[in-house]
Amino acid sequence: MSFSSKVRKSLSLEDSGYSGLVLEKLSSSRIQIGDTISVTKDGVEHTGVLMPRSQVGSDSIHVVIKLTSGYNIGIRMSQETVVHRIKPRGRRQAAPTETRIETEGLPHISILSTGGTIASKVDYRTGAVNPALTAQDLYDTVPELQNYANVHAKVLMSVLSENIRPTDWTKIARAIALEIESGADGVVIAHGTDTLGFTAAALSFALRSLPVPVVLVGSQRSSDRPSSDSAMNLTGAVTLAARANAAEVMVLMHAEIGDSYLHAHRGTRVRKLHTSRRDAFQSVNSRPLFRVTETEIVELNPPLLRRELERKLVLKPKFEEKVALVKTYPGVEHSLLDHLIDTGYRGFIIEGTGLGHAPDSLQSSVKRAIDAGVVVAMTSQCIFGRTDLNVYRSGVELLAAGVIPCEDMLPETALVKLMWSLANSKDGDAAKSLLLTPIAGEIDMRSEESEYITRFGGV
Amino acid sequence: MSFSSKVRKSLSLEDSGYSGLVLEKLSSSRIQIGDTISVTKDGVEHTGVLMPRSQVGSDSIHVVIKLTSGYNIGIRMSQETVVHRIKPRGRRQAAPTETRIETEGLPHISILSTGGTIASKVDYRTGAVNPALTAQDLYDTVPELQNYANVHAKVLMSVLSENIRPTDWTKIARAIALEIESGADGVVIAHGTDTLGFTAAALSFALRSLPVPVVLVGSQRSSDRPSSDSAMNLTGAVTLAARANAAEVMVLMHAEIGDSYLHAHRGTRVRKLHTSRRDAFQSVNSRPLFRVTETEIVELNPPLLRRELERKLVLKPKFEEKVALVKTYPGVEHSLLDHLIDTGYRGFIIEGTGLGHAPDSLQSSVKRAIDAGVVVAMTSQCIFGRTDLNVYRSGVELLAAGVIPCEDMLPETALVKLMWSLANSKDGDAAKSLLLTPIAGEIDMRSEESEYITRFGGV
Repeated sequence: MSFSSKVRKSLSLEDSGYSGLVLEKLSSSRIQIGDTISVTKDGVEHTGVLMPRSQVGSDSIHVVIKLTSGYNIGIRMSQETVVHRIKPRGRRQAAPTETRIETEGLPHISILSTGGTIASKVDYRTGAVNPALTAQDLYDTVPELQNYANVHAKVLMSVLSENIRPTDWTKIARAIALEIESGADGVVIAHGTDTLGFTAAALSFALRSLPVPVVLVGSQRSSDRPSSDSAMNLTGAVTLAARANAAEVMVLMHAEIGDSYLHAHRGTRVRKLHTSRRDAFQSVNSRPLFRVTETEIVELNPPLLRRELERKLVLKPKFEEKVALVKTYPGVEHSLLDHLIDTGYRGFIIEGTGLGHAPDSLQSSVKRAIDAGVVVAMTSQCIFGRTDLNVYRSGVELLAAGVIPCEDMLPETALVKLMWSLANSKDGDAAKSLLLTPIAGEIDMRSEESEYITRFGGV
Repeated sequence: MSFSSKVRKSLSLEDSGYSGLVLEKLSSSRIQIGDTISVTKDGVEHTGVLMPRSQVGSDSIHVVIKLTSGYNIGIRMSQETVVHRIKPRGRRQAAPTETRIETEGLPHISILSTGGTIASKVDYRTGAVNPALTAQDLYDTVPELQNYANVHAKVLMSVLSENIRPTDWTKIARAIALEIESGADGVVIAHGTDTLGFTAAALSFALRSLPVPVVLVGSQRSSDRPSSDSAMNLTGAVTLAARANAAEVMVLMHAEIGDSYLHAHRGTRVRKLHTSRRDAFQSVNSRPLFRVTETEIVELNPPLLRRELERKLVLKPKFEEKVALVKTYPGVEHSLLDHLIDTGYRGFIIEGTGLGHAPDSLQSSVKRAIDAGVVVAMTSQCIFGRTDLNVYRSGVELLAAGVIPCEDMLPETALVKLMWSLANSKDGDAAKSLLLTPIAGEIDMRSEESEYITRFGGV
């Protein structure tokens, strides 16, 4: 698989599986995927949204439209068939934001969509990557879902995940709480992959005493591509949320480049490590919790169990936004930290080098920050392994100045946790103490060095 | 191996292999490793520096001191042996900064020491991690070196690598040039591991038309520990510099947790990915160049070859320090970029999310920077994979604003390269163009996704 392939912003007719006569007729009427069209054949007019064909096989004589009933039909075209666009393009038709389908006796799973590639499948109306996800769309893609879950699907927001902010974490956490209070046996969050790890960490802290699984899921390749991971990841997420005995916030994504299995990662221990591969997400300093295949869920690392009797969630959804993540590098200037101190920042996560070092040139500003009441904590840009400020002089001096070593926490998780700790503590000292208190499997005083490369070959 | 083990700042007698009678006598005289002591036995007084024993086997009756001749001797102690400290501690004895040992017919290898754990072995005088490395120290550690290279060893600087600055890269590059002009067949740079990757990238750009190998080497565990990788890495580096047909800047470190083999990574493609493991360094988006064992050097990826006939190095050792590496995260504020623009920065490397995205909230400042002539380039915090700004709206807008996508360059390499490009171009436009011109294997328009996890299981 070469890097050169691209997701097109607007799906062409050719790429959608149309050819020959049908392609010719659609093209000559300037019709695109997602247009509402009229097809008149033998005196009967059919009206609906033009669908792509790549996923249902392809020939050169059928056109497929989605009727307002939700059903797709294929119409055999001939030279005499009349086809034209009947609605202006440009404005996106509003998707229904909530749908519910019920089968007695099955677990209830809520799917909250926040946006991103995973939720782009259904937007045939524009052919663009616009987030939307309804239960109907889901069932269209993966009809088997109906066999093992009642899905309650809801569009919570439509945000590319690079634009997710801490206030969105609050909103998502509150929405999850509502679903759980309404009796959901598990919740799935569809999310863009860019900041999926940050949101997973945030929800891990915000949802205390979680009684059921919360599974974040994304997609590295949109569903208009043959190599898409959307359907498998989403099916896996619903299965995991419905069946796993685990009351944790997890991230479920492909575990390898093929379609053989998925990994469920602990929300505070996972990171996107590749820009485009389907197995981009990897657990860091920790084993994944589950291996998920079409037929089984295998535990790899003991999770917290479902709390069937005591379902009372404790919601702590607030985050302090005035926390910065600062990565050090040769030549980094202390004026950067000074600027943050002067603009009211309450916390810094330094992403230092090696065991958790920063250049001596930053020391005076670090001390100034701590004197001003800013919480300064240290992580490592190595990503894997743990900080240890006791080994070298630089580290010892930072410790003496009051810098908190974040042990084996990911820099991204430490950032989110400090935002959460500051919002949930009466003062900086309490926040410091909370930062080093294990809350959601994010920190371990004795994690093993072995959790480095064994993950990469598969478990 | 647990994370809990620590390198002690001052080596204790017990950890140095002393026990029983010897330990008792040394302790009662308050003697520490590195002290100059007098040992009087059978009327003869021996004077020298107390050495640790962990690497030469251990018993409870011999004390080992280094005589002023440089030789180590073991003295069998009895109850009657008199031992005392004869020099005050506290001041470190100055190490000789340059030594040369010659054997006719062998290649000439220069070892330039910059500091760090790799160079800490020899400083028994204080027991502390103070950089120093002489040819004599080297031969004491690895006598076999004399069989295949004439080593010219020089202490260039004594800096923990977190404190290495771009001006130090200039100094190191100039020193290497001097060695090559003086006829060196290869150069080894001993360097702390924290910023080893940055320095390797810097030298890769600074040393144009390099005729011989330049091998950077570090150590993840200091040589006073049984698990030290110092000796094997250093031996490997000298071997590689002496024998490999490769005129590139490389980083040589352990390839796995045991002592079976090393990997030589291309200087622009390597990153420290673990805080403490011996195999912390990994090639990213590229295969290592060589596998190095005690007996062989196996090519894994074709390197540039030695230039025996045309040995003229072109030195471009300058770097612009006003370049910042900015990692994005949910909630990152644009005022950070504004501050950098206002304080005269000439370039930003953004370490964005996913394929190379930044939150919309940064867009106006990115545009302002570009309007002000700042070169803004995009990399990904995923580390593995390549940027692609053509897929999603956020990327397309950044491209339109004039942001340079750094393809499959590491963020750290992109930072160093932009510093170098700005210092070696007449203006910003020329620097932009240089940034995307392949110089030292740092960028590839078609690198494969497969260079992700196969490295981790060994090649």
